[in-house]
Amino acid sequence: MKYPPVHYHNYLDIEKLLNAQHPKSVEYQKPAHDELLFIIVHQTYELWFKQILFELDSVLKTFQQPQIEEEQMGRASARLERIVSILKLIIGQVDVLETMTPLDFLDFRDMLYPASGFQSFQWRLIETKLGLRVEDRLAYNQSPFYKSLMEDQQKEMNEVLNQQSLFDAVEKWLERTPFLQGENFNFWDTYKQAVNQMFQDDINTVNVNTRLNEEEKAKNVKGLQESLKTFDALFDEKAFNELRAQGHFRLSYKGLHAALLIQLYRDQPILQTPFRIIRALLDIDETMTTWRYRHALMAYRMLGQKIGTGGSSGHKYLADATSKHKIFTDFFNLTTFFIPRSKVPTLPKSISDRMSFHY
Amino acid sequence: MKYPPVHYHNYLDIEKLLNAQHPKSVEYQKPAHDELLFIIVHQTYELWFKQILFELDSVLKTFQQPQIEEEQMGRASARLERIVSILKLIIGQVDVLETMTPLDFLDFRDMLYPASGFQSFQWRLIETKLGLRVEDRLAYNQSPFYKSLMEDQQKEMNEVLNQQSLFDAVEKWLERTPFLQGENFNFWDTYKQAVNQMFQDDINTVNVNTRLNEEEKAKNVKGLQESLKTFDALFDEKAFNELRAQGHFRLSYKGLHAALLIQLYRDQPILQTPFRIIRALLDIDETMTTWRYRHALMAYRMLGQKIGTGGSSGHKYLADATSKHKIFTDFFNLTTFFIPRSKVPTLPKSISDRMSFHY
Amino acid sequence: MKYPPVHYHNYLDIEKLLNAQHPKSVEYQKPAHDELLFIIVHQTYELWFKQILFELDSVLKTFQQPQIEEEQMGRASARLERIVSILKLIIGQVDVLETMTPLDFLDFRDMLYPASGFQSFQWRLIETKLGLRVEDRLAYNQSPFYKSLMEDQQKEMNEVLNQQSLFDAVEKWLERTPFLQGENFNFWDTYKQAVNQMFQDDINTVNVNTRLNEEEKAKNVKGLQESLKTFDALFDEKAFNELRAQGHFRLSYKGLHAALLIQLYRDQPILQTPFRIIRALLDIDETMTTWRYRHALMAYRMLGQKIGTGGSSGHKYLADATSKHKIFTDFFNLTTFFIPRSKVPTLPKSISDRMSFHY
Amino acid sequence: MKYPPVHYHNYLDIEKLLNAQHPKSVEYQKPAHDELLFIIVHQTYELWFKQILFELDSVLKTFQQPQIEEEQMGRASARLERIVSILKLIIGQVDVLETMTPLDFLDFRDMLYPASGFQSFQWRLIETKLGLRVEDRLAYNQSPFYKSLMEDQQKEMNEVLNQQSLFDAVEKWLERTPFLQGENFNFWDTYKQAVNQMFQDDINTVNVNTRLNEEEKAKNVKGLQESLKTFDALFDEKAFNELRAQGHFRLSYKGLHAALLIQLYRDQPILQTPFRIIRALLDIDETMTTWRYRHALMAYRMLGQKIGTGGSSGHKYLADATSKHKIFTDFFNLTTFFIPRSKVPTLPKSISDRMSFHY
Repeated sequence: MKYPPVHYHNYLDIEKLLNAQHPKSVEYQKPAHDELLFIIVHQTYELWFKQILFELDSVLKTFQQPQIEEEQMGRASARLERIVSILKLIIGQVDVLETMTPLDFLDFRDMLYPASGFQSFQWRLIETKLGLRVEDRLAYNQSPFYKSLMEDQQKEMNEVLNQQSLFDAVEKWLERTPFLQGENFNFWDTYKQAVNQMFQDDINTVNVNTRLNEEEKAKNVKGLQESLKTFDALFDEKAFNELRAQGHFRLSYKGLHAALLIQLYRDQPILQTPFRIIRALLDIDETMTTWRYRHALMAYRMLGQKIGTGGSSGHKYLADATSKHKIFTDFFNLTTFFIPRSKVPTLPKSISDRMSFHY
Repeated sequence: MKYPPVHYHNYLDIEKLLNAQHPKSVEYQKPAHDELLFIIVHQTYELWFKQILFELDSVLKTFQQPQIEEEQMGRASARLERIVSILKLIIGQVDVLETMTPLDFLDFRDMLYPASGFQSFQWRLIETKLGLRVEDRLAYNQSPFYKSLMEDQQKEMNEVLNQQSLFDAVEKWLERTPFLQGENFNFWDTYKQAVNQMFQDDINTVNVNTRLNEEEKAKNVKGLQESLKTFDALFDEKAFNELRAQGHFRLSYKGLHAALLIQLYRDQPILQTPFRIIRALLDIDETMTTWRYRHALMAYRMLGQKIGTGGSSGHKYLADATSKHKIFTDFFNLTTFFIPRSKVPTLPKSISDRMSFHY
Repeated sequence: MKYPPVHYHNYLDIEKLLNAQHPKSVEYQKPAHDELLFIIVHQTYELWFKQILFELDSVLKTFQQPQIEEEQMGRASARLERIVSILKLIIGQVDVLETMTPLDFLDFRDMLYPASGFQSFQWRLIETKLGLRVEDRLAYNQSPFYKSLMEDQQKEMNEVLNQQSLFDAVEKWLERTPFLQGENFNFWDTYKQAVNQMFQDDINTVNVNTRLNEEEKAKNVKGLQESLKTFDALFDEKAFNELRAQGHFRLSYKGLHAALLIQLYRDQPILQTPFRIIRALLDIDETMTTWRYRHALMAYRMLGQKIGTGGSSGHKYLADATSKHKIFTDFFNLTTFFIPRSKVPTLPKSISDRMSFHY
Repeated sequence: MKYPPVHYHNYLDIEKLLNAQHPKSVEYQKPAHDELLFIIVHQTYELWFKQILFELDSVLKTFQQPQIEEEQMGRASARLERIVSILKLIIGQVDVLETMTPLDFLDFRDMLYPASGFQSFQWRLIETKLGLRVEDRLAYNQSPFYKSLMEDQQKEMNEVLNQQSLFDAVEKWLERTPFLQGENFNFWDTYKQAVNQMFQDDINTVNVNTRLNEEEKAKNVKGLQESLKTFDALFDEKAFNELRAQGHFRLSYKGLHAALLIQLYRDQPILQTPFRIIRALLDIDETMTTWRYRHALMAYRMLGQKIGTGGSSGHKYLADATSKHKIFTDFFNLTTFFIPRSKVPTLPKSISDRMSFHY
């Protein structure tokens, strides 16, 4: 009674919604039954993209603050997880689209030229806001990806490209992590020591292993020493920055350390929600990648080796973009530098106390 | 080049699509973050309902013909299966909606009163076109279901209620099945005989079973005789019509026989696609039922025992409607009258020949 | 090298695993193709049940401690969420089982009598350990549910029935929540006041509403007063305990308050993980309910109105048990007592401080 | 009563089933909670693989017959579709496995060395029976894939490698399609003509298009002529066989024609089920590919750039194998040679008659 009554039909603007399907095959008087499905699948994608952008913008706003209130973390984590949930749903839409056979698609495919999912402004915005940069993208028809957008969209995209992305904001947030160094504690030194100890133990184990002959021992020890070397990237800031300049890492040295700390000590009360946030970012990346892959497979099935409606070399482009367009690759690669929990150094009480509640 | 070039953005009328979300909480200047999700979930539902109706109408048109070309059967079956595929997808949308918590919903729930999914015209159309009649529906607020629709929708609904539904058309199609009776073959008599034989065998098995004492034997024989009696509904047209008048069956006597024939002899080439069609109708019914059930559970979780926004007693109404609104119940019940394949009478060659190809 | 090498085949004991399928139809020399599917679906169910029990036991152990370390909460929440993830997966197994048609099932159904999913010890254990009591269960063939288990299983079940369930342990944990009452703060009094204020505001809004005539005003006011009355259960311990004795609530008065506190103030750092735990318990209940429902629908489809192999009245029993066997019903009903966030009292700084980190 | 009574617990051999989990971490007295999940996920995979193999063997047996009864086609199609349904389910198991974090995996990863999914005999059997040949596989550690199997498994694998695969049997079945050439009809000539006509029409459309200048016209015409050239592979048996020798095609010239005929005329009664069979084979390939891809992504997430437990270069190998191990690639590529239905030649009545029923 506090608000004027409202009818479902008007509230959802269903009139407008159901009047937004304009099959070309009907316009050209060669009605193709499956064109409506094609339109509706893509329209529901775009509606979900709008929702994803809405959640993304709200999380971005949270992370762009100079300091993030702990109260906001639960909400940020829930919204990122909602994005994952939406992405999982829309992967399932490929199943529905595939009830359209290639022959059905041919009935109207020519009429859409050169329209293509490649021109989806919202999908490009999602990628960009998450942190995909122009230079990260697979080249396509020798021109930057935004050239296929409408003119005013290109302008907006260029603005967004110049704004802080979620990747950037998360990096800044990580760098601010207060626990990397305490009075009597330096996470990094402690971790380095633990890693060295672990490899030394492994080498000793090899050397006293009676099942191995001398040659095998030498080979194994060499392998372990090489593995240890891969940790140099982590422990030597200069080496790291060189690798970063070459594109092996994107995250800053300090940001990477903080991400490692969160992963290794995720059970500490104050790190429980940050851990969920990193996991959700990994999930978003993985789910988007899976969506791209299923999309590529579907395109292959629908078009064979024909050129995609957008002029791309079709499924080949899609398949290659699949893994190249991952954004939080550092979080995937970070795993390389994990050590078993039993080897992870125990936090000094002064630090773990600061990570807990005191009520 | 045959057609003027088209851009994805215009083709999908994305401008209109993305301008159809009007959160009340924004209008009333108390922005509630989750209202957009609520709107988008329901809008994607409605887009999918449009697609389901489109497929349904095309199948309906096929089945409303006085005779159906065999060439059209594969397509009809594929379109019904597409509906199943869409229904499975939108069941998954409940997972996304449930990322909104009850507390989030409360932020804008009052503003929507009395809007409710109960007012979805398209969902009601789907049910009605499939064959749900006014009298099949659970009473709701003491007035017929269509009273909650917009006025012009009520008019259209009343027209549709007077048209042949898919249930009706399928029934007519079943009744025309040519194999129920051949020159030297009467499916019904043969089946009746097989059923009687099967029960007689079972009774004999009980009587010679040395593991049973006399009392147990008597009890078992009695049970078998009662089971046999349930088949009377099938074999005695008069008894059947009485049960039908009482609402135990909806399908006609002849239609039911044909459905049984198709199920039992589904491997015959000419029955392969009809079998798939019956299966798809069962799947549609089962999936719609599941969707209603998940919807009821979600409503319970979202509202507790509060009254639903549409004024219904909320989740209780939804839960009760779940199974009552099934349409092809006869196809479910038919299973009661199946006998094991080893007991199913072999078709005479003259009949099975007519069910096959001759190239 | 630290451990002897192991082969995938031995590690997973695949020999044993793949030798545990014994189709009766093969034993009786009437091979029915689909019996293997029937066996494998149920065996994968049982493997997943073992996993669920394993997670459940570990969470139970955590919650059975007199005091729970905050570090353990993240892990408990993750394990409950894993259970949800498994339950969602096995709901999908119904799709696979339904590729078996009723006629295929008839080929071997008689050979299994009276084996039935009703006899699954592990599923019963899951329900019991979560907190389903003998008296909560739908009566079945006039004897307690455990009578259908093997003898040694009955004994174990009776022991488990006498142990603290997760429901009980969670209730105790909730009752220990330290924030219900502080020096200058009583959550309950504050909340009661907020509820009363909200209803008073609503009544005032009605009374000054010029769109309503006197009769309508009176009707609305009466409705609001009745709604307010339902909160009495919450505010009056004696009234609550009467309702609890009648079965309307299961959770203790204090436990319910704590659950409400967690829901309303879930953004407070210390409540973020508890909120996830309550949500996971709701999810488990909802997913188990959905699984039961799909199972009931499938049974209906497979058997029609025949008696289930276990002698139950088949799908009817399953459908009725579906919602009756819910365990954390109080958490569902709690929603009835939520008020919009804008009306929720702000926590005094002294309290919210104690709910936060101080590093 | 016809058969001795049986209990669920014994029927499913649950004793054996639940005693087949042997966590190494328990054996080595360093219990790692998540190892059980790891074992159970893989064991359910293997159970499902057994079911897939069972269905595959039955379909293989059908297709290996010199002539296939039409009555068997419906069943073959249903069993292939069941395989798809199982594959879709087990893709979902990746979600469950990913509730184990990389750090949890590290707790027991070393204990499993060098066990690896690469050693799954049943998965390799599925691939091989479908038609994946030794030479189709991505090289792995410089030795043939079967070297990683147990010794007796290697022997069995080599036998299976020498048997007719489903690919081979389907190819033979396609080649026997009776409608490729009738008295007054040659599918191939007619199709060739239609393709040429279509391209000629397109060229004419370009030439009279006033929106294009001469340069653009020339460019477009050239493009069309090049597209037409890709059809040469189809129309010139010698050219085709050269491409086949180079690995561009695997299916025989005649087999490919038949597959095209089935796709283009799938609505003909006799082709409805064959069309479903081809579609199911595509679905199997696509779903297996998707499963491999998700598996690769998961491995990346779990291991970073570490070497996989099986000694492979981990996720890189998996990602590369993903698309390379596709089997029915020809059916995907066939789409390249589809022409729009409006251009597909109408079948002469004598042919379409033979494709229909005559009852």
